[in-house]
Amino acid sequence: MHIRGFQEMMKQLYFHRDSKRGLKGTYEWLMDEIEELGEALDASDKEATEKEFADVIAWLASLANIVGIDLENAAIKKYNGKCPKCNHSPCQCKF
Amino acid sequence: MHIRGFQEMMKQLYFHRDSKRGLKGTYEWLMDEIEELGEALDASDKEATEKEFADVIAWLASLANIVGIDLENAAIKKYNGKCPKCNHSPCQCKF
Repeated sequence: MHIRGFQEMMKQLYFHRDSKRGLKGTYEWLMDEIEELGEALDASDKEATEKEFADVIAWLASLANIVGIDLENAAIKKYNGKCPKCNHSPCQCKF
Repeated sequence: MHIRGFQEMMKQLYFHRDSKRGLKGTYEWLMDEIEELGEALDASDKEATEKEFADVIAWLASLANIVGIDLENAAIKKYNGKCPKCNHSPCQCKF
């Protein structure tokens, strides 16, 4: 599934609620999901981890819907097959 | 671009570094990116917000690569066109 298609599905499913909840509340929910992902990773619980990854990308798409940003376009604009810092693939940045 | 294709691009670009940094360090970096997204949203800076959305999905894909989870498969398994809680589209959950 395309990133854009997933974001559109989230809009169809949740935009009526996301838009009422608003930007701040949706951002806080995304943060909660990130923390739950961390807990699932700490517990090495593969099934829970998979579900939390799904929730994080879902809430990220919901947040993008609220501010009218196309997540796929944003992702490809910055990461177009090369590292945006060193311009190489694989990345050769020195840290 | 498919979610899977984006995740594969991240693997090609960054897996050699992500795998050295490890799970904990990569999760912390994802958390930093979420905070930077929050700052860009607070500042209503559309260009910065777009770049931070790109960084969040990029680091989410990197984290999924480290634990060997297919982000697209995880997303579709949970969100398959209906709300996973109420089974409706649009979601009709009561809160």
